[in-house]
Amino acid sequence: MTERGRFITLEGGEGVGKSTNLALVVGHLRACGHEVVATREPGGTPRAEDIRRLLLDPGEEEPLDPDAELLLVFAARAQHLARVVRPALARGAWVVCDRFTDATYAYQGGGRGIEASRIAALETFVQQGLEPDLTLLLDMPMAAAQRRLDGRLRGQGAARDRFESERAEFFEAVRQAYLARAASAPERMVVIDAGADLDEVKAELLARLDERMATWQ
Amino acid sequence: MTERGRFITLEGGEGVGKSTNLALVVGHLRACGHEVVATREPGGTPRAEDIRRLLLDPGEEEPLDPDAELLLVFAARAQHLARVVRPALARGAWVVCDRFTDATYAYQGGGRGIEASRIAALETFVQQGLEPDLTLLLDMPMAAAQRRLDGRLRGQGAARDRFESERAEFFEAVRQAYLARAASAPERMVVIDAGADLDEVKAELLARLDERMATWQ
Repeated sequence: MTERGRFITLEGGEGVGKSTNLALVVGHLRACGHEVVATREPGGTPRAEDIRRLLLDPGEEEPLDPDAELLLVFAARAQHLARVVRPALARGAWVVCDRFTDATYAYQGGGRGIEASRIAALETFVQQGLEPDLTLLLDMPMAAAQRRLDGRLRGQGAARDRFESERAEFFEAVRQAYLARAASAPERMVVIDAGADLDEVKAELLARLDERMATWQ
Repeated sequence: MTERGRFITLEGGEGVGKSTNLALVVGHLRACGHEVVATREPGGTPRAEDIRRLLLDPGEEEPLDPDAELLLVFAARAQHLARVVRPALARGAWVVCDRFTDATYAYQGGGRGIEASRIAALETFVQQGLEPDLTLLLDMPMAAAQRRLDGRLRGQGAARDRFESERAEFFEAVRQAYLARAASAPERMVVIDAGADLDEVKAELLARLDERMATWQ
């Protein structure tokens, strides 16, 4: 029987540098000889990406109900788990995912104010016990992250999506919810100071990853 | 304080004549002097109709996971309840809805095989106690309903959607699940023989509706 692969998630708010660091983690794991599936949530399959588009659609005439938003997030997650994550882990591949359920607690819980117990009910419903083996949380003060996000959007000439257009209090609540999650699950979640120089962040990220991988031998 | 309006749902499989009979019910209630909101599920708001399109999309390369389907149905329902149904009932309007949660038990439960207890968990999560006051279930043997559906699709030159393309066993399971629901909630659900002549069906429907409305005076 093939050993189940490891499931690693990267978390953090807008502008903390998830994409760059995700590529770094994936490259490192491949260099170690693992088959790696790099994916993201919400999304990761064509149908789940369709759901993602509904979630990000600013459509200001009709606000999206917070419960509807939460159920869409978990619908996309169910599809992604069934089609991508579970099959990959089962064949022994490692999965590196840009955001997972900690983001739901941060955005829909901290940001939108949905009670953690309601999120937990859907988490149990959809995941049935599946959890990341390791979660790397990229953290930095909100103001600095917002400056990075502004720079990126200007560079791309892109408009803000439904989440990016939220106000400062929303992002601060997201950040605090992420930090509270990390504090309550220290054996799974590692907080990385993403406000440092990029080289320092990379070095820290790889050090913490190697440290954890050593315990999995 | 305005008295809350009544919530009436019409249920039944494909080809049982829901549209015709929905118009009849709505016309009758308006003639009685009620403000009536006629709507449908999944859908009923622009965002919920977007979710409906994802649900009906045949996209055969990527099957939709049954849990993802169920969560999408309830996401659309949460949006529809928040934006249309609850506000209408609160201002005293009557709501007549083409399909609601009984359809979820019939299609996702009976048809897809999801356990009723898992559906009930999401029903509680989203509806928080809200139930139809009356549900009219249009019932007819599967073969006759399929002939009607074929005729309608030929007339429209339309292709079958994800549900319409299911096989006979699926539709039979849907019908049996609907009948079981009706048997377990006789105080709320009324079964109408939709296989009779249209005039008879209409007369039966209005008679049962008036009977129920008399108890609400």
